[in-house]
Amino acid sequence: MSTATSSTSTLLERIFEGEVRAVARAISIVEDNVETAAELMRGIFPRTGKGLVVGITGSPGVGKSSLVDRLAGLYRERQERVGIVAVDPSSPFSGGAILGDRIRMQALGLDPGVFIRSMATRGQLGGLARATVDAVAVLDAAGYGKIVVETVGVGQDEVEIVKAADVTVVVLVPGMGDDVQAIKAGIMEIGDVFVINKADRDGVLRTEKELEALLSLAHRADGWIPPIVKTVATENRGLQELADAIESYYEFQKGATEGLERRTSVARWRILELLRERLLARALKSETATLQVDKLAAQVAAKERDPYSAVEELMNLPRGEGS
Amino acid sequence: MSTATSSTSTLLERIFEGEVRAVARAISIVEDNVETAAELMRGIFPRTGKGLVVGITGSPGVGKSSLVDRLAGLYRERQERVGIVAVDPSSPFSGGAILGDRIRMQALGLDPGVFIRSMATRGQLGGLARATVDAVAVLDAAGYGKIVVETVGVGQDEVEIVKAADVTVVVLVPGMGDDVQAIKAGIMEIGDVFVINKADRDGVLRTEKELEALLSLAHRADGWIPPIVKTVATENRGLQELADAIESYYEFQKGATEGLERRTSVARWRILELLRERLLARALKSETATLQVDKLAAQVAAKERDPYSAVEELMNLPRGEGS
Repeated sequence: MSTATSSTSTLLERIFEGEVRAVARAISIVEDNVETAAELMRGIFPRTGKGLVVGITGSPGVGKSSLVDRLAGLYRERQERVGIVAVDPSSPFSGGAILGDRIRMQALGLDPGVFIRSMATRGQLGGLARATVDAVAVLDAAGYGKIVVETVGVGQDEVEIVKAADVTVVVLVPGMGDDVQAIKAGIMEIGDVFVINKADRDGVLRTEKELEALLSLAHRADGWIPPIVKTVATENRGLQELADAIESYYEFQKGATEGLERRTSVARWRILELLRERLLARALKSETATLQVDKLAAQVAAKERDPYSAVEELMNLPRGEGS
Repeated sequence: MSTATSSTSTLLERIFEGEVRAVARAISIVEDNVETAAELMRGIFPRTGKGLVVGITGSPGVGKSSLVDRLAGLYRERQERVGIVAVDPSSPFSGGAILGDRIRMQALGLDPGVFIRSMATRGQLGGLARATVDAVAVLDAAGYGKIVVETVGVGQDEVEIVKAADVTVVVLVPGMGDDVQAIKAGIMEIGDVFVINKADRDGVLRTEKELEALLSLAHRADGWIPPIVKTVATENRGLQELADAIESYYEFQKGATEGLERRTSVARWRILELLRERLLARALKSETATLQVDKLAAQVAAKERDPYSAVEELMNLPRGEGS
């Protein structure tokens, strides 16, 4: 509704020119505060949709980071600018992401054509998935031709994040297929491309056969049969094939009528995520409300009252000023 | 606030008597609708806190289900009633949970002293974590002495679910420790007890050494040094030691001053989760609002408008009746 303030206009211009510091600043804004992000994102949104967004997911230990780094390297050889957004939702403490980043920086961090950002949990207010999807949109608007979103784990948020990508890649390693848990993980349904990484290990053929069998049972609405690519990321093997498979699905889905259905479902999810986050932000805006939450949490912990009646009380507080 | 309606009072009485069908019915209520669950949960809450709640987490493929089943079997030998709540957040489609359950049922499902429930995603409205914690509370109030919550994956919700348990068990397998990803997973910080399952595999000593090294770097506020237990769940090996380690931490934390801090943090999280969910439910209560979401999602998908201004519009709708 409102026209952008002049500081937002300047920031938007710098982002559209691909200025790295402006991109970093914009991502910090979407991470920090959903309410101040709104003005910026309204300017970003119309400029999105040009970059290819690849979501890469899989369990810890399958070698996603190496795979992402090598894929980024390959895109760089083709003179593409690459954005990498790594989601690390489960570490509310320090350590993990920093260590990972330090290792990556050695290979890619000095290349000005690569932008790397780790998204950590936003704590109890939630909103990690929304902030991640917004960060991808910023990179897209800044002209990054390939944007890779890497998520660890298989939780609900992570699934939504990778579903929001144009192409979703699920990474496995040999030996996982022999366990019902691997099926239970439920990531089978979301993969447009499957990778068996560490394909120099024993059991690769068996895993491939089992995966093929599983995929043959799943009939996708769009008729796409997800290809299986074998890689050894640490030795740069299979990356070309992976890039080709990603490109194939990207081209395929452009023409498919199911594409609009998927985009509508993603849009719906984004709207509800954002609505949830903004309603909570509005409810907790006043100092009275935050103090009240502290008091109620202490009472619930002491078993003096139950969480439901505590929330009932918060629901009936007057709306914070300015909302 | 309101006194319980007579149907809720009857249901509560039956739950407190440990009637299995009443428990199942109550869990369905907390799964189905956060607003109707409120009355029930206000009655449940004062009766909780007697059972030992064990949260078990780890990546897909580490054998959590077998471990949980064997642990439940051991508790059954001690004449304890056992509740199992398995969270399967990432499979919005059918298949996974059902397959897993069918396998489990063969071993435990015929035993009336064991209650098993799979919690699946609640779709785009969220609330899985809240519903899971509520389900645990129902089992607790129904007199189940041991309640095991099993979560797959390492997302933010799953971390909160296992943190809400009295004792959190993190399951690894040999060979995972050699990967930075395993550290990045960020589950190290939340484990009160660590299990190396499939401990008959190669590399168990190395994984144990690496895990010890990692744990020695993490200084917990409560001074607890998490024990490492080696198991081969499928052969029933190490389960006694695991049960002892769980019991040890349970006794330890009862006396620790940090216990209240953890409980307050969990209470805070529960209140915010519930508040978020109820605010969204209230905002989407009217038919106008749900139709509006559909319309806006289609517009965002067609890039006719951005998600932020769409949400702005939803925020300004009048509140639904009865809220």
